[in-house]
Amino acid sequence: MTLKPASVRRIAGRYPFGHAGDIQDAAPGLAPGDVVDVREPGGSLIGRGYFNADGATPLRMLNWDGGDIDLNFYRSRVREALARRAGRIADTNALRVLHAEADGLPGVVADQFGEVLSVQLRNAGVERHRDLILRALREETGATSAFERSDTGERRKEGLELVSGVLWGDVPEKVTFFEDDLTLHFAPMDAQKTGFFLDQRDNRRLMRRLVQPGQPFLDVYSYTGGFSLHAAKAGARSTAIDKDNVALGVLEREARENGVQVGLRWGDALEQLSALEKEKKTFQAVVLDPPTLAKRKDDVPRAKRIFTDGATSALRMLSPGGHLLISTCAHYFRVDDLLDAARVAAGAAQTDAEVVAITYQPADHPHLLSVPESLYLKSILLRKQT
Amino acid sequence: MTLKPASVRRIAGRYPFGHAGDIQDAAPGLAPGDVVDVREPGGSLIGRGYFNADGATPLRMLNWDGGDIDLNFYRSRVREALARRAGRIADTNALRVLHAEADGLPGVVADQFGEVLSVQLRNAGVERHRDLILRALREETGATSAFERSDTGERRKEGLELVSGVLWGDVPEKVTFFEDDLTLHFAPMDAQKTGFFLDQRDNRRLMRRLVQPGQPFLDVYSYTGGFSLHAAKAGARSTAIDKDNVALGVLEREARENGVQVGLRWGDALEQLSALEKEKKTFQAVVLDPPTLAKRKDDVPRAKRIFTDGATSALRMLSPGGHLLISTCAHYFRVDDLLDAARVAAGAAQTDAEVVAITYQPADHPHLLSVPESLYLKSILLRKQT
Repeated sequence: MTLKPASVRRIAGRYPFGHAGDIQDAAPGLAPGDVVDVREPGGSLIGRGYFNADGATPLRMLNWDGGDIDLNFYRSRVREALARRAGRIADTNALRVLHAEADGLPGVVADQFGEVLSVQLRNAGVERHRDLILRALREETGATSAFERSDTGERRKEGLELVSGVLWGDVPEKVTFFEDDLTLHFAPMDAQKTGFFLDQRDNRRLMRRLVQPGQPFLDVYSYTGGFSLHAAKAGARSTAIDKDNVALGVLEREARENGVQVGLRWGDALEQLSALEKEKKTFQAVVLDPPTLAKRKDDVPRAKRIFTDGATSALRMLSPGGHLLISTCAHYFRVDDLLDAARVAAGAAQTDAEVVAITYQPADHPHLLSVPESLYLKSILLRKQT
Repeated sequence: MTLKPASVRRIAGRYPFGHAGDIQDAAPGLAPGDVVDVREPGGSLIGRGYFNADGATPLRMLNWDGGDIDLNFYRSRVREALARRAGRIADTNALRVLHAEADGLPGVVADQFGEVLSVQLRNAGVERHRDLILRALREETGATSAFERSDTGERRKEGLELVSGVLWGDVPEKVTFFEDDLTLHFAPMDAQKTGFFLDQRDNRRLMRRLVQPGQPFLDVYSYTGGFSLHAAKAGARSTAIDKDNVALGVLEREARENGVQVGLRWGDALEQLSALEKEKKTFQAVVLDPPTLAKRKDDVPRAKRIFTDGATSALRMLSPGGHLLISTCAHYFRVDDLLDAARVAAGAAQTDAEVVAITYQPADHPHLLSVPESLYLKSILLRKQT
């Protein structure tokens, strides 16, 4: 297939996604997920990619050298991904080993928990090559068992069914893994997905170091409570707020299995924050880590208001010198948006704060220069003035 | 003095600077640097600040509680600044103890090198209170000697002379300090200022860890060569480029005194980079740390081109898997501008890179939430694809 002249520079410059407007013409009779040669209007080869005329993203580039897309290609990509992570993820046996286009494989996400691999195949291209990809993953990671959780809505846009199940080996009913001194669990085949966000690992450790035994810690939008569990393990009195009762159930069980207690508050985050304010609660550290509030650029102003409201409550309840972490996993919500929201919140709470850190996703969720969207997790750590 | 209605929210929200357009009226007869009560149009007090009708920034806020601006005030500010840094700056005896408005004292900058304090007073307000401020600094830091380097052009805009000289104690002719295993020196009273950028401390350590003995390291816009010296001390073969011959002379002397060698290339950075390319040089790590290229927003496009050209050369000469640090100390040049410049450079160099870190100024140069300008040093660390 041939690109339009205006799109050559961007895609030749390693940006992996081509939309309908980028494509001049494609050979007739291409099936969804076919690997195609991608060419400049003059005919010279740019590289190879998956093509799906019906998909929201018809072109996903795989290479820029025109090499074959075969088992060796997939093995190299997995090997490079493992090399990229080598020595950079410590004190856990749970990490993302393949992060889609950020590891040069658009559509493949794989997380490893000890010997068990969790795989998601997201588009028609990787679906067509599923056998090659799974073989490469199996051989390169050495995982003794694997399961698939390709039950993401994204697949429907590619004309694919949702799929989940065992891929190879004996997948345990309950997978156990560790992060520092926490032992954690999940049931791979539960209909209700209650996962664990690997990408907040470094922030969990950061926050844990900021609380002393006995100090109150608040985890807003806790989900299954990674932050709460870490803080509780450090001796803090953790309180978790979430509106997902199933996630809070998991959190309660994990707390018990790790020999700690976490106070649970079920409900809307902002309402629960107001309630805590009325109860005159104070905290030494607070985490505000909502789910994606800005899926599109248009959502940013609304997301900003929610962050501002949450941060205002949090700053009011924070002890002087205490810390607030505010996190966004939305590509469109930028560090400057977080800072703006926090600044307005500090004004409303009549205080000020030092921005003691600005952090990003960890090394197993790479940020690739050529793919701006691969930077998605951004957090600011504030220390309330004394 | 009274603020205009539209300016109340911003300044009451802890933003410390008021411009001519923010001010509704001021009492007649105020002298440059007088401390004034700052009020809303309705008359209620917002706080206190320095006033200088003729200055580019007529109002600089000092507090938001209306408390007295006396010795106790200055002592508290210095104490708070020291507390803010406690335990956060290690393995050196050189740090910035007061960073102007980011530490709640607009116009006062103080760096401590062991027992010696270096002080800069930048505006008419702090000049009027110089005795109080110096006493507070002397008592709270315990520095046995101090000198003043108030020879910044900023003072002229405030109607002040440039001043430098001994403030108290026996200031040594040559001040010695250390950073990790480097012993460094400067002559406090040299007409030609050849300082050492304390704010790049963490980045120097970051880069040093990325080179092995014998590997080639390139320090572009080296100035007195902090990066080069650290890398050389780690065994790397450092090359430093700068157009400032005096700075290169200091670098040469410091290298000798630390028992290492650094290759020096005097000249324009981009020209020297081209020359190195022609010589077919390769490097394991490169630092691109130009002086402020964007003093105003309008300078950003030009700065971007310089960063892009420099990064293109650097990426071409970088070994696969090698690291490139790109740094900007300009408030107006943002992380996204650095990433954009690097992305264009990677395209031109026909390569790609992982953004392995985005870093900011260290803890002795605080980033205060209420003062967006206090975030000024931003760096991206790239790892060239293998």
